[in-house]
Amino acid sequence: MEIRVLQNILEANDQAADQNRRRLQEAGVAALNLISAPGAGKTALLERVIPLLSTRYRVGVLEGDIATTRDAERIGALGVPVIQLLTNGGCHLEAALVAQGLAELPLDGLDVVFIENVGNIACPAEFDLGEAAKVGVLSVAEGHDKPAKYPLLFHELKALVLNKVDLLDHTDFDMDVFMRDFRGINPTAPLIQVSCRTGAGLEEFAAWVEQAIEQARGAAALSP
Amino acid sequence: MEIRVLQNILEANDQAADQNRRRLQEAGVAALNLISAPGAGKTALLERVIPLLSTRYRVGVLEGDIATTRDAERIGALGVPVIQLLTNGGCHLEAALVAQGLAELPLDGLDVVFIENVGNIACPAEFDLGEAAKVGVLSVAEGHDKPAKYPLLFHELKALVLNKVDLLDHTDFDMDVFMRDFRGINPTAPLIQVSCRTGAGLEEFAAWVEQAIEQARGAAALSP
Repeated sequence: MEIRVLQNILEANDQAADQNRRRLQEAGVAALNLISAPGAGKTALLERVIPLLSTRYRVGVLEGDIATTRDAERIGALGVPVIQLLTNGGCHLEAALVAQGLAELPLDGLDVVFIENVGNIACPAEFDLGEAAKVGVLSVAEGHDKPAKYPLLFHELKALVLNKVDLLDHTDFDMDVFMRDFRGINPTAPLIQVSCRTGAGLEEFAAWVEQAIEQARGAAALSP
Repeated sequence: MEIRVLQNILEANDQAADQNRRRLQEAGVAALNLISAPGAGKTALLERVIPLLSTRYRVGVLEGDIATTRDAERIGALGVPVIQLLTNGGCHLEAALVAQGLAELPLDGLDVVFIENVGNIACPAEFDLGEAAKVGVLSVAEGHDKPAKYPLLFHELKALVLNKVDLLDHTDFDMDVFMRDFRGINPTAPLIQVSCRTGAGLEEFAAWVEQAIEQARGAAALSP
């Protein structure tokens, strides 16, 4: 019974996600769904990478949170269009709420939309939002055992940003165990090591985002 | 429609939680529901505090995880009874699964049962497991803004362990903002600052657990 209900929710979500995907493709916009645990640094990553991108690309942001508009205020300070999506207790973003957010953004004037999900590495991995790619963010402080313990997200993501590498010397993070576990679950997604505090690695992440933008443009040019 | 279904799930959970609570009270066992984001240090906290407690108290552990038995193996190495509760994708523990775990523990011979929830600070806060208290664990590395952004958990918890205080000098954690936000949501729960890496503060947390154990014994003595 519960399973059937959950399937209905996921099917309804998938339909809304497909609509989002079509809308984004028509506009030639790359949508990147950022997923991490609370405090891994999704907003800090955007604060760092948006200035690198916005010299050449037009960026929009949907900020998902359970409560408060703090993250949207941080992103708004960068001068890019941002919409706060409040789940009011909900533990993940769903495609229908993202559709409302996309309708509020000037999509035809954008190249990339970052969708910052609720801080949670369990539930958000289950819900397609219509994005081009899920991007995981993991903080060194969370420990090297997370890919094995939360396999769905680490399997689904198309790139993994390992943040707070400035803390590697102050934690017991074991890079060898981490890489073995991560590659066992996801053999191909690039691992991009960054520190949003020191600025290390941000150019590499910006370059990955630029690739995603060019792919979305190429797909839009090919579509009927 | 979805709301009604969710209410049914929560009502069924509450009934199972009430049964757990009665069973624990009859046995005079304090059950503590540990909730945190992934990698905040719940298992590390148990690895540190169980040796402090087990000279005088008998400890049992239920280890909740989405996948793997790694945490139960870490706790089992301490020589205390531990049961791994696997949700197989589920983002939180529910009371019915905890009931199965309690049935496998030698409850009548225990003083305290730690229930380590799935790493997630959204969903687990919504589900009563029949515990005496929810105990939150927050890592300094997650940032000072978490109480405002995840208000339900910080409102519900009876004690908050702030872990990884050895990283305070290596992060931008603002203790004043944190305390203002936390006390706005929860004026009374003690804040216990620890570092599971250096050992700082663990005696204080052990003393808080001992209080909870003595309260559970007192309640059992008073019950008919």
